[in-house]
Amino acid sequence: MSAPQPPPAVIRPVDETARVAAQRELDRKTKPRGSLGRLEDLAVRIAGIRGTAAPEPLRAVIVVAAADHGVAAEGVSAYPQEVTRQMLANFASGGAAISVLARAAGAELLVVDAGVVEPYAHPRIRDLRLGAGTANATAMAAMSREQAAEAVRRGEELARELVEAGVNVIALGEMGIGNTTSATAVGCALLGRKPDAMCGAGTGLDASGIAHKAEVVQRMLDQNCPDPDDPLGVLAAVGGFEIGILAGLALGAAAGGTAVVLDGFITGAAALVAARLAPEVGGYLIASHLSPEPGHAAMLAALGVEPLLDLGMRLGEGSGAALALPLVAAARAILVEMATFENAGVTDTGR
Amino acid sequence: MSAPQPPPAVIRPVDETARVAAQRELDRKTKPRGSLGRLEDLAVRIAGIRGTAAPEPLRAVIVVAAADHGVAAEGVSAYPQEVTRQMLANFASGGAAISVLARAAGAELLVVDAGVVEPYAHPRIRDLRLGAGTANATAMAAMSREQAAEAVRRGEELARELVEAGVNVIALGEMGIGNTTSATAVGCALLGRKPDAMCGAGTGLDASGIAHKAEVVQRMLDQNCPDPDDPLGVLAAVGGFEIGILAGLALGAAAGGTAVVLDGFITGAAALVAARLAPEVGGYLIASHLSPEPGHAAMLAALGVEPLLDLGMRLGEGSGAALALPLVAAARAILVEMATFENAGVTDTGR
Repeated sequence: MSAPQPPPAVIRPVDETARVAAQRELDRKTKPRGSLGRLEDLAVRIAGIRGTAAPEPLRAVIVVAAADHGVAAEGVSAYPQEVTRQMLANFASGGAAISVLARAAGAELLVVDAGVVEPYAHPRIRDLRLGAGTANATAMAAMSREQAAEAVRRGEELARELVEAGVNVIALGEMGIGNTTSATAVGCALLGRKPDAMCGAGTGLDASGIAHKAEVVQRMLDQNCPDPDDPLGVLAAVGGFEIGILAGLALGAAAGGTAVVLDGFITGAAALVAARLAPEVGGYLIASHLSPEPGHAAMLAALGVEPLLDLGMRLGEGSGAALALPLVAAARAILVEMATFENAGVTDTGR
Repeated sequence: MSAPQPPPAVIRPVDETARVAAQRELDRKTKPRGSLGRLEDLAVRIAGIRGTAAPEPLRAVIVVAAADHGVAAEGVSAYPQEVTRQMLANFASGGAAISVLARAAGAELLVVDAGVVEPYAHPRIRDLRLGAGTANATAMAAMSREQAAEAVRRGEELARELVEAGVNVIALGEMGIGNTTSATAVGCALLGRKPDAMCGAGTGLDASGIAHKAEVVQRMLDQNCPDPDDPLGVLAAVGGFEIGILAGLALGAAAGGTAVVLDGFITGAAALVAARLAPEVGGYLIASHLSPEPGHAAMLAALGVEPLLDLGMRLGEGSGAALALPLVAAARAILVEMATFENAGVTDTGR
């Protein structure tokens, strides 16, 4: 079956020469070699992504993509579906956690309606709607293959627009009642793991809620039998509109030489789809934090990234990504602004 | 022997009413209860310290106290003693890691000469010198009891000055070749632990260097036999001038209702001295990060605080504290700026 597929984004591997130059530069700075630990690794990563050992100041946008999930009808969330739309309104009026955390981080917030059941029109919400929520994936595919491809395409296009406007860090966030369930199904399909090993509390389920969610994920997989070697097929079968947009954002950001800061479990699933479509995307990812969702560590390991923070956060919205942005800015500043042993007149023992 | 002792700082326990009010306020915000994890705990902690569930915006100063240590003569550091003074110059000219990280965090940097062997006069360096470095504590007490008390007093006085100027977060940093050794001796004395369980690589020792350092710490303890129930005596016997100033800063900050952000191992030892002088200081501490020094976790456990970051950083200077400041600001912003379920019109299921 030759269904439509987005043209593969042209993503260069990260710049190994810039990484080596950055490490050499860090080793000349007035500090014992390696003493800034993972902040140094992060600086090297940024250099590789930006293609220079002297990256310019960061300009970050946090994109929060929201959509509804048909599988919410299976009672997999502690919240009713209308909360997705209510939270869109809250994002737009600046009162949500991510609104506050974006301001605290000095980052712009871009709110995207990827397909909430009932749209909430507002000048600060970008309409990239793929439909009025996905179908219930326990009964059929969540969306068509065409919709999945279009979601990825729209995400790539948005990334291109941001990169052209001078953005050099794109942080991913999401909102969607039921989307932990969809992300779990995507993760199970792509990583070949069982639902009960991947399912967690989401935004607030108890033990019986988690068991029910694992059973729902199993039904999604049984209904659709997604092919792990067909990431777009997995997205269409059990994913979500916002997950597609976020996967496209990661692809488009990487194609534009721009860092992608992941949030938690759902953005991890989106990055997994992106990395299966184009493995080079992995080098452009920065993992902000480790979610308590049991499947998150496995996702990050598959993506080859280590989380910077581990604060037990499970909100989503991009909240963890926002908290990591100052670390990204600090890592870049160390690389560019610190004095060297030579120009500061500090004795270098080579240690 | 009734040696001089600083007057005990009057430190109120943190405000339990404000803590309870902050937790109640957080539970009204548009997010599942507890979903911001340890960021919520941090917000509650700030409320308790500031005595209100609506703390004003943070104004942070990072104090980097530098001093020399006679024990450096025992070859316990990968760097020669003159590096302490060279780094003072580097702090003053803005090229050191902490200079860069303070700017990145939007915090003021205050550099204190607590007793470097040869002073480096500069308008941006505050002279609080207690002497030209401590004595070699393997042969005698590092300083007199009078000097230890005076170091603490000067730290308290500096904290009072900062609090009066409107500072409400004081972050601690340090520099001093050999000071990991002194801090280890302080930690061993106050925690009743053996040097080989507390000693680590400091700024860059190999395994034989670490073994040598443990042996030197044992000699410091054997020479001075510090009494674990006499924190000022421990500071005098095996501590350092900057450790005394930092202990005083913690006491003075707590007395002024001001948060104290710890850095790594050496500031941890200073906080331990402060907490043994006045246990209420513990409630005012925020642990920024976990150092790879093996004794750090034990120190933080004794202080009753959990580190926010774990990035393998072992530089000191306040570098970890600087990285945690945006998290402190974000926690406060969540508490004060987020919308409630009620005023945002978001359905609250009580989860």
